Amino acid sequence: MALIVQKYGGTSVGDLDRIRNVAERVARTFDQGNDVVVILSAMSGETDRLLDLAGKITPFPDKREVDMLVSTGEQVSVSLMAVTLQSMGYKARSMLGHQAEILTDNRFTRARILGIKASRIKALLAEKHIVIVAGFQGADANGDITTLGRGGSDTSAVAVAAALKADKCEIFTDVDGIYTADPNICSKARKLERISYDEMLEMASLGAKVLQIRSVEFAKKYDVPIHVRSSFSEEEGTMVVYEDANMEKVVVSGVTHNKNEARITLSKVPDRPGIAMQILEPIAEAGIGVDMIIQNTRAGNLTDLTFTVPKSDFEAALEIEQKIAEKIGAEDVVGDKNIAKVSVVGVGMRSHSGVASKMFAALAAENINILMISTSEIRISCVIEEKYTELAVRTLHTAFGLDESI
Amino acid sequence: MALIVQKYGGTSVGDLDRIRNVAERVARTFDQGNDVVVILSAMSGETDRLLDLAGKITPFPDKREVDMLVSTGEQVSVSLMAVTLQSMGYKARSMLGHQAEILTDNRFTRARILGIKASRIKALLAEKHIVIVAGFQGADANGDITTLGRGGSDTSAVAVAAALKADKCEIFTDVDGIYTADPNICSKARKLERISYDEMLEMASLGAKVLQIRSVEFAKKYDVPIHVRSSFSEEEGTMVVYEDANMEKVVVSGVTHNKNEARITLSKVPDRPGIAMQILEPIAEAGIGVDMIIQNTRAGNLTDLTFTVPKSDFEAALEIEQKIAEKIGAEDVVGDKNIAKVSVVGVGMRSHSGVASKMFAALAAENINILMISTSEIRISCVIEEKYTELAVRTLHTAFGLDESI
Repeated sequence: MALIVQKYGGTSVGDLDRIRNVAERVARTFDQGNDVVVILSAMSGETDRLLDLAGKITPFPDKREVDMLVSTGEQVSVSLMAVTLQSMGYKARSMLGHQAEILTDNRFTRARILGIKASRIKALLAEKHIVIVAGFQGADANGDITTLGRGGSDTSAVAVAAALKADKCEIFTDVDGIYTADPNICSKARKLERISYDEMLEMASLGAKVLQIRSVEFAKKYDVPIHVRSSFSEEEGTMVVYEDANMEKVVVSGVTHNKNEARITLSKVPDRPGIAMQILEPIAEAGIGVDMIIQNTRAGNLTDLTFTVPKSDFEAALEIEQKIAEKIGAEDVVGDKNIAKVSVVGVGMRSHSGVASKMFAALAAENINILMISTSEIRISCVIEEKYTELAVRTLHTAFGLDESI
Repeated sequence: MALIVQKYGGTSVGDLDRIRNVAERVARTFDQGNDVVVILSAMSGETDRLLDLAGKITPFPDKREVDMLVSTGEQVSVSLMAVTLQSMGYKARSMLGHQAEILTDNRFTRARILGIKASRIKALLAEKHIVIVAGFQGADANGDITTLGRGGSDTSAVAVAAALKADKCEIFTDVDGIYTADPNICSKARKLERISYDEMLEMASLGAKVLQIRSVEFAKKYDVPIHVRSSFSEEEGTMVVYEDANMEKVVVSGVTHNKNEARITLSKVPDRPGIAMQILEPIAEAGIGVDMIIQNTRAGNLTDLTFTVPKSDFEAALEIEQKIAEKIGAEDVVGDKNIAKVSVVGVGMRSHSGVASKMFAALAAENINILMISTSEIRISCVIEEKYTELAVRTLHTAFGLDESI
């Protein structure tokens, strides 16, 4: 009937009983007449256990060897799953990344997929095998094992689905779909039936941890419909698909928040060409990612520059900037870890105006001060004081009409 | 100076401290100016842990999937070893079976090596890397992972040494060499300085568990000198090499024993051509290996046929023969599990006569009855009652002058 790729995360295959549950779900899908390819993560905790071993030897183990090490986790999962399906009477076969011809670059621990041939998978499907592919891993042109970064199994699943031109890519996880906001802080959050790739990309990068960003980029590029759903229930989850006319009618699809950033401000910087580069290049060289950047002009040929970095890199970034400030003659450097970013996301913004002012008004009505603003075509983000995060999310959720079912 | 292949077993890499010890030993060998290739087993207990997982799913898991599963054990060892050596400042690189181009047939769980290209190993050695290869595993022509059976890492080591034309293959294990008899039952047993491939083959197949038989066959075929030694001391162990004139001066090199067989006798079998085949073929078809076979003629065109099988297959073999006996009209089938085989081994037998009679006389002097006899060019084996095993080994050890140092 259809060719379906199913991905199950580490919690779903955490022990032999759970592996059995997943096997039964896979078998049901197969019994309905579908061809099935299963992508698995390592049993939960296994990747951390292995990283821990290497970390006990040296704080910065060689990344090629780390990939060699941690990729065993998925290898164990796929073989146990194949054995389980076989014990239930099904033809099943496990495949590693290099066996499934998942070719990547050689950026170990965060490799990117360059292509998938999948000829063996196709041959096995033609013989009515259930094929079980190790997620998270591939091989570079030398045949060295690479891994795709945390959450990389999502990308494996979408990439395999794209290579096979699968009808559907189901991502089974421990949540039951994508929500209009985090249900833990917004009780009126609703599960979305559908969301566009672009919205999902904005939501993923803003802190909704359901899908690896790279997998959504892949899905958009190769037009792979993703179905995010729970491995612990039969309920439908959320479809991630190309946007359609219906989606554009809704102005805002979701409200997200992110407490993992901190901001650094250099004030009274002598304003001359190239000054932003001088301030930010050393941060990039230290391998620290900068998210938002804002520059204001002051009187007297002076300027203030503010940017945000991950909280975990805050101290390192602050130290760098203190040296820079001295060098370029800035008056002061201040940092603030107690911030949060709240955002509204929706493809409807492309055709609706007034979203920003509505957002600012809603926050102002609750006396929430806006510290920074940034926007994209389908997103508006405000940095606020961290303590207002939950209130801001609930306020915006209500203000944009997300509380009621549509 | 030299190209040295070193193999370390599971006990030697059982935890991070032991891996560090091995790394230091490897580093010393490298610092002496040698090129070093290291072959590792899985950390002790790991292979059993993984087999146990599969065994909990089904008693007879698919062998391809078992190999996929257990081969992760060696993968973890080699990556941790590479990280350890790197943390000590050495250039090190781990390699899996398929990366080292160890091509095998597709008899999963007991594959045989067909060839090794080892081009990547050579390239890395040329760049002064220490290369760490996963033992026990290879890949078949399809790229599926295969394993070489228990003790297969020995064979990996010898095969890699052969492919690289290494000067030496050192097998580090938890014993310090090959002994003239099992020191646990014969306190006068001595460690041998040298032993020939042929003697080692006879000793290995007779129950001395130090080296996998296949590795010795490989070493003989490709003229790879093996040095069996302890990973817990610096002492020299035993060299396994081609026989030379000195070895032939010694009539018997060692005394071995084996308590893992049982015998089955069919008595008063009508003697006609093809009768042995009728009796033994069903045993082979059941996958049971037969070791010794003896046929005696009786009066009246009747014959008795006795053979030995592994103790673990005794009940199955007995059941098969009870049916056969009925079919061919044999009078009786009797089995006996309380037997043992003691053997004397030595290439000197080729040029010395009287070894057999000396052996029989020595056993007779202790009132030990001989139940079966079999011989090869360099070995004489006697089956005796199990309870006499230790006495027989000590008696023969003394009778053939092995007690004193030579």
